[in-house]
Amino acid sequence: MTGRVIGIDAGGTKLLAGVLDERLDVQHRSLRLWRGRDLAGVLDTMVEAVDEARSVAGDIEAVGFGIPALVSPDGVARFSTHLPLEGVHFRLLMEERLELPVFVDNDANLAALAEQRAGSASGLSDVVMLTLGTGIGGGLVLGGRLYRGSRGLGAELGHMVIEMDGPPCQGNCPGRGCLEVYASGPGLGRAGAHAAAASPTSALGRALASGQVITGEVVSEIALGGDPVAQEAVASVGRRLGVGLVTIANVFNPEAIVVGGGAARTGEMLLEPARAVVAARALPPVRDGLLIVHAAFDADAGMVGAGVLALSRGDC
Amino acid sequence: MTGRVIGIDAGGTKLLAGVLDERLDVQHRSLRLWRGRDLAGVLDTMVEAVDEARSVAGDIEAVGFGIPALVSPDGVARFSTHLPLEGVHFRLLMEERLELPVFVDNDANLAALAEQRAGSASGLSDVVMLTLGTGIGGGLVLGGRLYRGSRGLGAELGHMVIEMDGPPCQGNCPGRGCLEVYASGPGLGRAGAHAAAASPTSALGRALASGQVITGEVVSEIALGGDPVAQEAVASVGRRLGVGLVTIANVFNPEAIVVGGGAARTGEMLLEPARAVVAARALPPVRDGLLIVHAAFDADAGMVGAGVLALSRGDC
Repeated sequence: MTGRVIGIDAGGTKLLAGVLDERLDVQHRSLRLWRGRDLAGVLDTMVEAVDEARSVAGDIEAVGFGIPALVSPDGVARFSTHLPLEGVHFRLLMEERLELPVFVDNDANLAALAEQRAGSASGLSDVVMLTLGTGIGGGLVLGGRLYRGSRGLGAELGHMVIEMDGPPCQGNCPGRGCLEVYASGPGLGRAGAHAAAASPTSALGRALASGQVITGEVVSEIALGGDPVAQEAVASVGRRLGVGLVTIANVFNPEAIVVGGGAARTGEMLLEPARAVVAARALPPVRDGLLIVHAAFDADAGMVGAGVLALSRGDC
Repeated sequence: MTGRVIGIDAGGTKLLAGVLDERLDVQHRSLRLWRGRDLAGVLDTMVEAVDEARSVAGDIEAVGFGIPALVSPDGVARFSTHLPLEGVHFRLLMEERLELPVFVDNDANLAALAEQRAGSASGLSDVVMLTLGTGIGGGLVLGGRLYRGSRGLGAELGHMVIEMDGPPCQGNCPGRGCLEVYASGPGLGRAGAHAAAASPTSALGRALASGQVITGEVVSEIALGGDPVAQEAVASVGRRLGVGLVTIANVFNPEAIVVGGGAARTGEMLLEPARAVVAARALPPVRDGLLIVHAAFDADAGMVGAGVLALSRGDC
């Protein structure tokens, strides 16, 4: 029997680990919070998660990590905003501590890989994935393989400019009018806050009046509860997302665009208006047959993708 | 001695043919206008050009064609606006007539290939090419190979949206606010006409007053002649081009972006403002070290790229 691997998704607040076999069945799963937010605490938590998994699965042959950072081909983390990994030679360091082959990639890349190998775009070879969260992560599978750009830093699809003189972007991005301004969780929150102020008697408006902070999460929740004002806020974000998808369609001509992440949890309420914009505005031969689908994996995407990475020994 | 190939660039108004050896030296070159604009006239002109080249070079082993159309992997022309090739099984048809192996691709793809193999981006493996003309053509070399999208229809980089509620795009594109609206030859003409009307005493303004149609070509000519108003019109287009390059940089993380085509003939006058926008607005790890350069091949790009395609027997 071929050995199994461990896939680890290291998020900004927590770590999800799983043991995966060749068929990508997840046989053991554990979630833990970071034990300290400094580098030592983060690395120790990762090692503990691997040790725990190995104690139940003796045949582990490799470990894959998805981290919220740009990762260069030699396994060095760069430009990491949510974990203190910037400049860390992650792969080397982890191989020394674990005494196992280690593979590491950007978490959004791995989510794309999971969807393309076993999720909503299973069996397709040209797939673009967008993960809408605090920021927007992007992953590209082109010709059946992950495309990481010339230095492993590519696929920052949240930073496509969709409004040339638009508002400043967030975080470390010096851009303006990036897709992330409009279609991330905070973007959805802003659209919702605007709608709430304009419609004080709606459920969303009453939430604002009661002193609630209108985050993307709150807008999604109230929209799913049936409030038409919150639903229209989601739809307006969907239309802007659709503008970004027009660019993706025209540039990549993919078979599928997969949209996931917490800010996409309203599903069709967000995707249907996005699809309508693509149908109206993308080049006809490119939009025909293009699938725009919700992610199949929810919280598991990064972990499953990390498992795929480890199973292929980084060759994907 | 290894045989040579013929590279043919089939443009909207004319055909350029060349005989190329393995080192991409062009040893015979001929230009001809279409003998009739119907399908038969176009194909006959192509066959004549090949026959003429074979009469001087007896060792031709394959022919490469660049055509102004989207080309699917099986060599069928799709979505062709400038030549009557839409739906034509170009490769099969030409192989029957020429009795030689034939390879065909989109002309903008082949221009990118020429620049990446032997031009401004020679030796680099991740290169994005933009050709600014009547429209904007795009070509992607990713990981050393042409990327054509899932059905050979990708890399329509002129149709990235840079202004979500911008003006309608041109030609067959149902989009709004595409890069092509702003940074194509017609876009440059519009920027120039606007500037001319605002500054009637400038050289550009006087050209307008004299009844001249302010095309991109006219704006470039007068800007190169030193008129500051025309130069500022070029710079304003450069800044909008720069917004498109921010998206390209963030999405592809290429080593180089090569800009060519007639509407880019002012060179640095256009590229310098574009570079400034990229320096200010692209993600720092992506913009660092990114080359933004003018194309090395001028009118020869498509023909040389068609030669590369034929020399590699389509494997590029």
